[in-house]
Amino acid sequence: MKLYNVAYSGNSYKVRLLLSQLRIPCKIVEFDILKGQSRTAEFLKINPNGRTPVLIDDDGFILAESNAILAFLARGTKYLPNDKRQWALAFQWMFFEQYSHEPYIATSRFLLQHRPDTPERAAVLAAKRDGGWAALKVMEQHLAKQDFFTEDYSIADIALFA
Amino acid sequence: MKLYNVAYSGNSYKVRLLLSQLRIPCKIVEFDILKGQSRTAEFLKINPNGRTPVLIDDDGFILAESNAILAFLARGTKYLPNDKRQWALAFQWMFFEQYSHEPYIATSRFLLQHRPDTPERAAVLAAKRDGGWAALKVMEQHLAKQDFFTEDYSIADIALFA
Repeated sequence: MKLYNVAYSGNSYKVRLLLSQLRIPCKIVEFDILKGQSRTAEFLKINPNGRTPVLIDDDGFILAESNAILAFLARGTKYLPNDKRQWALAFQWMFFEQYSHEPYIATSRFLLQHRPDTPERAAVLAAKRDGGWAALKVMEQHLAKQDFFTEDYSIADIALFA
Repeated sequence: MKLYNVAYSGNSYKVRLLLSQLRIPCKIVEFDILKGQSRTAEFLKINPNGRTPVLIDDDGFILAESNAILAFLARGTKYLPNDKRQWALAFQWMFFEQYSHEPYIATSRFLLQHRPDTPERAAVLAAKRDGGWAALKVMEQHLAKQDFFTEDYSIADIALFA
């Protein structure tokens, strides 16, 4: 199995964290998206959507989308709840992460770390602020009531921790 | 079971479509997000993230995020593939839908239908155009090779059709 990985990406980190917790050996292939390595013709053949991480198993099966990779690796393990409702809530929180959290929080972190401090960057960051606080408020409220996003530690926690 | 539904929302439509295909009876509770009905204190108690649709089953179990609701309803049926790889690909396409498609295509459609034609709207639509075309290109390329997003018709198709 190999992982097309971006060392400084939260979405890649999720997968590395789960691989480590599941003790699954995996070859890590480093990609530098800042150098456009995920937009080359070669990479677009692997993932036409041009996004990392991508997992390729030993039979050549290709899987993109970090949270789909988490679900694939976690299926049948304690990291994806078996109970139908808890199972659905794990996905609820992972969809929340990709729609309501990542585009604000993770994208802002990326801009702050990897893009020059220009008025354009400041404008983009400002536009993301309300959405970011809203996502954090939802999470804070939920975690005031319980330790994990689902009943026990799961891939929902991995997704939102990353 | 009841669904907090927005009649003109693609995300709500997904769930209604699957409920219909599964022949699951469900009470439809209409919400008008244009009138702020998903941001009332009462609704935020149900979904702190203030988004529709929301499914509530007969025991009071609450589930948000349209694609998590699809997965919940489809689990154990032919609409969510059982094969591990096809199962993971269904989620891959649903995460693609929420991250790379919905914020461009669905949001643009919503703005065009429900927001006044102002310079601000035009600017937002313009900013979404490239992302929208990129998502459609990925889908077109995939559907040139096969009839459905996964091997057979699944909730991935429902999510992207909506």
